[in-house]
Amino acid sequence: MKKTTLAALAVVALTSMSAFAADTSKLVLPGDITLEQATRVIEAAKAKAKQTDTLMNIAVVDAGGNLKAFARMEGAFLGSVDISIGKAKTARLFNMPTKDLGALAQVGQPLYGIEVTNRGLVIFGGGELLRDKSGTIIGAVGVSGSSVENDMAVAQAGAAGL
Amino acid sequence: MKKTTLAALAVVALTSMSAFAADTSKLVLPGDITLEQATRVIEAAKAKAKQTDTLMNIAVVDAGGNLKAFARMEGAFLGSVDISIGKAKTARLFNMPTKDLGALAQVGQPLYGIEVTNRGLVIFGGGELLRDKSGTIIGAVGVSGSSVENDMAVAQAGAAGL
Amino acid sequence: MKKTTLAALAVVALTSMSAFAADTSKLVLPGDITLEQATRVIEAAKAKAKQTDTLMNIAVVDAGGNLKAFARMEGAFLGSVDISIGKAKTARLFNMPTKDLGALAQVGQPLYGIEVTNRGLVIFGGGELLRDKSGTIIGAVGVSGSSVENDMAVAQAGAAGL
Amino acid sequence: MKKTTLAALAVVALTSMSAFAADTSKLVLPGDITLEQATRVIEAAKAKAKQTDTLMNIAVVDAGGNLKAFARMEGAFLGSVDISIGKAKTARLFNMPTKDLGALAQVGQPLYGIEVTNRGLVIFGGGELLRDKSGTIIGAVGVSGSSVENDMAVAQAGAAGL
Repeated sequence: MKKTTLAALAVVALTSMSAFAADTSKLVLPGDITLEQATRVIEAAKAKAKQTDTLMNIAVVDAGGNLKAFARMEGAFLGSVDISIGKAKTARLFNMPTKDLGALAQVGQPLYGIEVTNRGLVIFGGGELLRDKSGTIIGAVGVSGSSVENDMAVAQAGAAGL
Repeated sequence: MKKTTLAALAVVALTSMSAFAADTSKLVLPGDITLEQATRVIEAAKAKAKQTDTLMNIAVVDAGGNLKAFARMEGAFLGSVDISIGKAKTARLFNMPTKDLGALAQVGQPLYGIEVTNRGLVIFGGGELLRDKSGTIIGAVGVSGSSVENDMAVAQAGAAGL
Repeated sequence: MKKTTLAALAVVALTSMSAFAADTSKLVLPGDITLEQATRVIEAAKAKAKQTDTLMNIAVVDAGGNLKAFARMEGAFLGSVDISIGKAKTARLFNMPTKDLGALAQVGQPLYGIEVTNRGLVIFGGGELLRDKSGTIIGAVGVSGSSVENDMAVAQAGAAGL
Repeated sequence: MKKTTLAALAVVALTSMSAFAADTSKLVLPGDITLEQATRVIEAAKAKAKQTDTLMNIAVVDAGGNLKAFARMEGAFLGSVDISIGKAKTARLFNMPTKDLGALAQVGQPLYGIEVTNRGLVIFGGGELLRDKSGTIIGAVGVSGSSVENDMAVAQAGAAGL
């Protein structure tokens, strides 16, 4: 293909990007979590983390399970970047708190071994669903950085802050 | 944790699954592609494939980029299972046909090298967006199994069948 | 490489694709599952899912363990895309229902840990073999979206629909 | 292992977590980017994105190359979650803007092929270093969602907002 053709194609593609940008309503389904909502969840989780003297990674995914927002507090575990995102995704992938999925995945329980699917799930507490006022799931929040109990408390505070 | 506690938790989780099942409107955002729509796309693509004497893998993803439906015709390339799904995902991930993204990813072009991101994108034609009547993107279709031109023609026929 | 050489190669490749397309009997083993059969399996599984008020992901693989057809019902777990395909593959990879493999993979059992092989197996019920009238294995079906018991019942209904 | 031993271990672990939490100065290097700084970078990038009518994914990594904060604007490409994070990491991994690394990675250039290392680098513009007042690198910002030129302009605005 000639260089001029490629350049022309690039212009077309870039133009169509601008066109898209002009009307975001064509790009996302109505009701999906907004960045403002996700930021509120993170702020509420951070407030709870400070109150409980814990250092957290906090992740929010949208209804499709794709990362929407993330924050890591000073001193929070580096290894919890992946875990907090994994918790949020896992909660949305199975429409339940990760603690509930984890209960089903214990030794001797029905879903033992499920954690190796989906390129790695997180099967302990700290992932909670996010619902709009009608109860529709619009995403999930995952928190990691302290004991599972603390992670859960902070995630639930985040969800309540929606 | 005692076995009885775990069993109780399992019951809770299963009960909540049943509860979820009762009202799917809480589980998906309004307007996302339905299985019936995805099946129509696949049938339209298959009809075009037969008409052009080609053997295709056809994949449909939803607005979140998650696989919704898939079909492989007899004799279609085994290696195109992954490629057709990859084309559908790639189209939705960047809101443009894979051919347009590919033009931007050629040697010397601005997005050269993009194909190694997202655990592997497909940067040649055959992935097309699916839009509802208002123009909102509700998913994408990916077709792989013949020449890129044929793949594109079949994918476009699939999209038109929505 | 000169442009004319590339063009010539392309012609060869496309011609050979067309040649293949003309006679699918040279491309697949006799007796392997057809797309029509796979679709029947999915339809039978869907009917059972509706009857039991469950929301399922349903995957069918062929005798080679490669994905043949897939469908996700509205509201079915996003995380079960991977699990349903994994169940179908796992069943065919070891020629037994995933429940049976799972029994061998429990703590203290001979195949403990097998789930991390093959880039992730699924070791709980819901993957069932598909056999032709003579009993030859021609593929497998995997179902995921509810309790393991429901997943198994729907997978078995799918297999019976073959 | 006996239940009491496990409980004791858990107490030790939780105690040590609390201890850590009490003094974050022992957990991070002096001068590393703070969440407040990362948030300022994201806000400055968002402001520039709005001004240029673009829809962006914006990621900030710390001096160790680990994700610190992330935000995806409404309608921004889903595929740019991975790319924006990849740009930020790539910039820090090689201590240069991704555009500069990309120039070295083109066909015929010394680093041709480098993009497949590190589980996937991003070799086009939009990743910029973040430096403190003395010029020390304390992290990087990656932006993805529009043309490379726009991505770079937004990333540079983000860096300037530090």
